[in-house]
Amino acid sequence: MENGGGAVKTTTEWRFGVSDDLLSSSRVSIRGVLTKVMENLPGEGGAAAEPIPLGHGDPSVFPCFRTTTDAEDAIVSAVRSAKFNCYGPTVGLLPARRAIAEYLSHDLPCELSPDDVYLTSGCTQAIELVLSVLARPGANILLPRPGFPFYEARTAFSGLEARHFDLLPHKGWGIDLDAVEALADENTVAIVLINPGNPCGNVFSKQHLAKVAETAKKLGILVIADEVYGQLAFGETSFVPMGAFGSIVPIITVGSISKRWVVPGWRLGWIVLSDPNGILKQTKIIEGITGILNITSDPATFIQGAVFDIIKNTKDEFFKKTIDLLRETADICFERLKEITCITCPHKPEGSMFVMVELNLSLLKGIEDDVDFCCKLAREESVVILPGSAVGLKNWLRITFAVDPSSLEDGLGRLKSFCKRHSNAE
Amino acid sequence: MENGGGAVKTTTEWRFGVSDDLLSSSRVSIRGVLTKVMENLPGEGGAAAEPIPLGHGDPSVFPCFRTTTDAEDAIVSAVRSAKFNCYGPTVGLLPARRAIAEYLSHDLPCELSPDDVYLTSGCTQAIELVLSVLARPGANILLPRPGFPFYEARTAFSGLEARHFDLLPHKGWGIDLDAVEALADENTVAIVLINPGNPCGNVFSKQHLAKVAETAKKLGILVIADEVYGQLAFGETSFVPMGAFGSIVPIITVGSISKRWVVPGWRLGWIVLSDPNGILKQTKIIEGITGILNITSDPATFIQGAVFDIIKNTKDEFFKKTIDLLRETADICFERLKEITCITCPHKPEGSMFVMVELNLSLLKGIEDDVDFCCKLAREESVVILPGSAVGLKNWLRITFAVDPSSLEDGLGRLKSFCKRHSNAE
Repeated sequence: MENGGGAVKTTTEWRFGVSDDLLSSSRVSIRGVLTKVMENLPGEGGAAAEPIPLGHGDPSVFPCFRTTTDAEDAIVSAVRSAKFNCYGPTVGLLPARRAIAEYLSHDLPCELSPDDVYLTSGCTQAIELVLSVLARPGANILLPRPGFPFYEARTAFSGLEARHFDLLPHKGWGIDLDAVEALADENTVAIVLINPGNPCGNVFSKQHLAKVAETAKKLGILVIADEVYGQLAFGETSFVPMGAFGSIVPIITVGSISKRWVVPGWRLGWIVLSDPNGILKQTKIIEGITGILNITSDPATFIQGAVFDIIKNTKDEFFKKTIDLLRETADICFERLKEITCITCPHKPEGSMFVMVELNLSLLKGIEDDVDFCCKLAREESVVILPGSAVGLKNWLRITFAVDPSSLEDGLGRLKSFCKRHSNAE
Repeated sequence: MENGGGAVKTTTEWRFGVSDDLLSSSRVSIRGVLTKVMENLPGEGGAAAEPIPLGHGDPSVFPCFRTTTDAEDAIVSAVRSAKFNCYGPTVGLLPARRAIAEYLSHDLPCELSPDDVYLTSGCTQAIELVLSVLARPGANILLPRPGFPFYEARTAFSGLEARHFDLLPHKGWGIDLDAVEALADENTVAIVLINPGNPCGNVFSKQHLAKVAETAKKLGILVIADEVYGQLAFGETSFVPMGAFGSIVPIITVGSISKRWVVPGWRLGWIVLSDPNGILKQTKIIEGITGILNITSDPATFIQGAVFDIIKNTKDEFFKKTIDLLRETADICFERLKEITCITCPHKPEGSMFVMVELNLSLLKGIEDDVDFCCKLAREESVVILPGSAVGLKNWLRITFAVDPSSLEDGLGRLKSFCKRHSNAE
């Protein structure tokens, strides 16, 4: 029962409570699972080794990943101007929308207009709002497995049914499109894809994206393209934004400055519509988006006010430095993991900040599953890795390589020692 | 039907759409109504007079209301430190939570702990989250009339039923507590009060708040105390935070730095629990709050990182200057309105930034209602005022006095001319 007032030391019977749906939908999150893993880290006075965070996608704490001072300068001058202490328009400040439209249009066949861009409090809020807009009784949505559990949490919260299609590890984490078609029915409203991939570190080819668009069109559903890791591709496959296929099927792209500028804490994201045929207007999706923006909080106005300068003033060298660093750390990660017998990496990462690897438990003793593996690894080696079950693949691991190279070498060395120590080979 | 794909120039039948519930719940907002009124402002080349905004609660554009440089400095040094580019904890950064707990404890009988404080993206998100946590099928919530329409929008969005109790203009906008008791039933979960009052500009006395607490206890419901205008009291009645009555009934206070520091665009708010009897824990409300914070966006981390310094470094003179200015402008407003026959002000404002006044349409010709009044006033005099129907009282007006004194004199002078010109007295 929701009402737990019985034990209170008054005679009042409290009438408020919390629905079980809310409690269960908000329970699984990457931060939540990582917190559980980190509880196993030896406290002060425990192991001498410094904890190494290979669990989450936020390298901003490492000096080599520090954002450009051009971006900091833009924020400082927006604050000092005192022009942005006010509430902003619910859809976002026009110069910021225009700057983002121009920035994203570089890689698209048709130019975006500022009206296609809505500002949000990080990509998190962009996802939250898009799912809220699409939710209606009985509707379902197609989500990738492995995926990003925030989608599962928000679909459950919004009353949408989640249906999962597999990403295929031995086909470069490509989408199983036959499975997508089999999964969809007349209540399916959208398919989500995350490119570059979280948690898989893959980058979808242009040909594959075209097939996704054709499949979505055939099914009559829209595509939600999560490109929060947009442009962070460093392998053989180039990043192509899904919006390039907007003339085939309506595309809603969500993204932010969080990853490419390494400032996830700045909370500036966007919802962008690629829909030259005007289907999102006809189906009232645009009205839904502007409506929900009316009744939700905005990103800080001075951050919106800084966006134009952040985009204009950031030099290519900064982006290149980040990409080079990610390529270097992805290489280190891939090579070092080859030395660990109980871990298999089916696909070398080409983008984002992660790689998914499979755990062979039959080669280990005293390890129950991926969660047990990660908890014991944290306890014994002070290395934090995300159990694959948090992203939908039990007995896999998601490893972040976006840390400074020496910490990565250290962390992977400890991972190797741990696996060797727990190996059941005589 | 939600599916409007029939007219699309393809054979695809689109399966996505937007629920009518979302569209209708997000339609009424102060910003939306003001936009409608402002569409009547003469464009460039129209009337020479500069528009005077007496419609919304954001004086940050006026130099006399500019925030303290101490607050700006705190933001700048948080950005420059590069320590806050990362994601923050979902509940908020500890030093910020501690600073807010101390700041709010000054006026409370029991000290708040940092654990009682949760950071949000402005008071807007605080309200949104609290209502989401309380929502469950069949539940209802008691809202003041006149009130702040964001509550109506979010209750509808969350599937809560809104029930309205009156604020009594001739009793200093006090709450009709008999009506509250009559309104509540076993599905009522909470009562909302806004103090200092928006839109009424009243400040509830300590005695009145105590009665609200007793009534809520009797009904077994919690109190949501919206104190976004907290401390902005300049009349005879002192501001007393509702949290002072937490030992009678659990209080959830929502607030922010937006109004007292005049920085609504910075988006830093809070949810604070005053509940020494631990009822919010027993009823799982706390679990609901931490759960929903897990799956929503946060305020920018560097703004959280600046909060400690913002609170510590802001000098009393800054607060005093703002209060003196609000007292001066409230006086100007009250005196000037007395000169306008068709407008009655039942209660001199003592807090917040607003006053509610009644329109006597029988003294005017050619004016249909409050919306018509405000649209014509904008067109003819370039003065923007919020129609009372936007806050639940038809044929009333909500006037903001938080503008610089000379603009206020000018705006009220134009209002007087408008009323005189439309008077039906011969």
